[in-house]
Amino acid sequence: MVVKEAVVGVSARHAHLSQEDLEKLFGEGYELEPLRDLSYKGVFAAKETVSIKTEKGVMENIRVLGPVRKQTQIELARTDCFKLGIKPPVRESGKLADSAPVTLIGPKGEIELPEGAIIAARHIHIGLDTLEEWGKESGDTVKVRVGGERGVVFDNVVLRGAGQGIHTELHLDTDEANAALLNTGDKVEVILEG
Amino acid sequence: MVVKEAVVGVSARHAHLSQEDLEKLFGEGYELEPLRDLSYKGVFAAKETVSIKTEKGVMENIRVLGPVRKQTQIELARTDCFKLGIKPPVRESGKLADSAPVTLIGPKGEIELPEGAIIAARHIHIGLDTLEEWGKESGDTVKVRVGGERGVVFDNVVLRGAGQGIHTELHLDTDEANAALLNTGDKVEVILEG
Repeated sequence: MVVKEAVVGVSARHAHLSQEDLEKLFGEGYELEPLRDLSYKGVFAAKETVSIKTEKGVMENIRVLGPVRKQTQIELARTDCFKLGIKPPVRESGKLADSAPVTLIGPKGEIELPEGAIIAARHIHIGLDTLEEWGKESGDTVKVRVGGERGVVFDNVVLRGAGQGIHTELHLDTDEANAALLNTGDKVEVILEG
Repeated sequence: MVVKEAVVGVSARHAHLSQEDLEKLFGEGYELEPLRDLSYKGVFAAKETVSIKTEKGVMENIRVLGPVRKQTQIELARTDCFKLGIKPPVRESGKLADSAPVTLIGPKGEIELPEGAIIAARHIHIGLDTLEEWGKESGDTVKVRVGGERGVVFDNVVLRGAGQGIHTELHLDTDEANAALLNTGDKVEVILEG
């Protein structure tokens, strides 16, 4: 059994907005204001937040991440989804066909999106150089082992290769991190089968 | 590898109260009113709920389970704990020494408990007859395997033997269940090592 290492990044619920939706929610010509850089290259937490509205209630303070994307995508933990009474599918980022409809509220407007809400599929951001060193291809899956009193093995963790020389980072949502008592910055074992 | 089966029971945050604390919160001589029986023998969800108050805020509608216990115990998911800004330890039910302090609010009063809040350690309720059949003792740990797109193996699952002929039930909190896309009533594999 070949074991490698990855660093954990925990993602709380958040929103990626298209420029068009950003302007509908925050006003014409609006631009996101970066609050702090995230570990993943070029991505930042913005000053802006939005609310999600469902029949069951409103969830406020959903952090917007920048820069803007081609299509608006809302990433929620399943705990959030029960609270909101919605059932988004588990999906890789960007694969939004048949994802859940969602209504967003901003300071200047409200939009009803026919799709865009997902529960993010856990994945590892990895450089193409490291991927080659591991003998894997982007899209392959691995297992991740976590020790400790809430030790678990996560199955079906997708490797997402891009760039060179970036550090190898396991992205989990808050349910997954809390189930395993993990925090951002913790180290975990990646198990390469065979 | 020997594989057995268990049924999942998901526990949302809840409170077990002592008679003394119940009366402080709901009034002298108060008795819990059963709302519905839970799968685990003799335990019921009560009509009553309490609120938890911390420096960070108030969490309402924490369901009380009955019957009353010797000591008040509040079981929270780690997601709840982040929201409340408290850090209870992962503990087996009833092991409350050095657990987290917690302030409870009821319709007739408020109590500050020096201990009582925990994150419940996952466990399997199992009959002594089944335990013997499995060649295990109460307190032993096993692994639990869950399939599907969010497949995981939970390590360190404690077997808690009591009674005879009861069904074998894995108790998880909402973080653990959501991390693995499990619902109450789902079936999982229990892996007996060696």
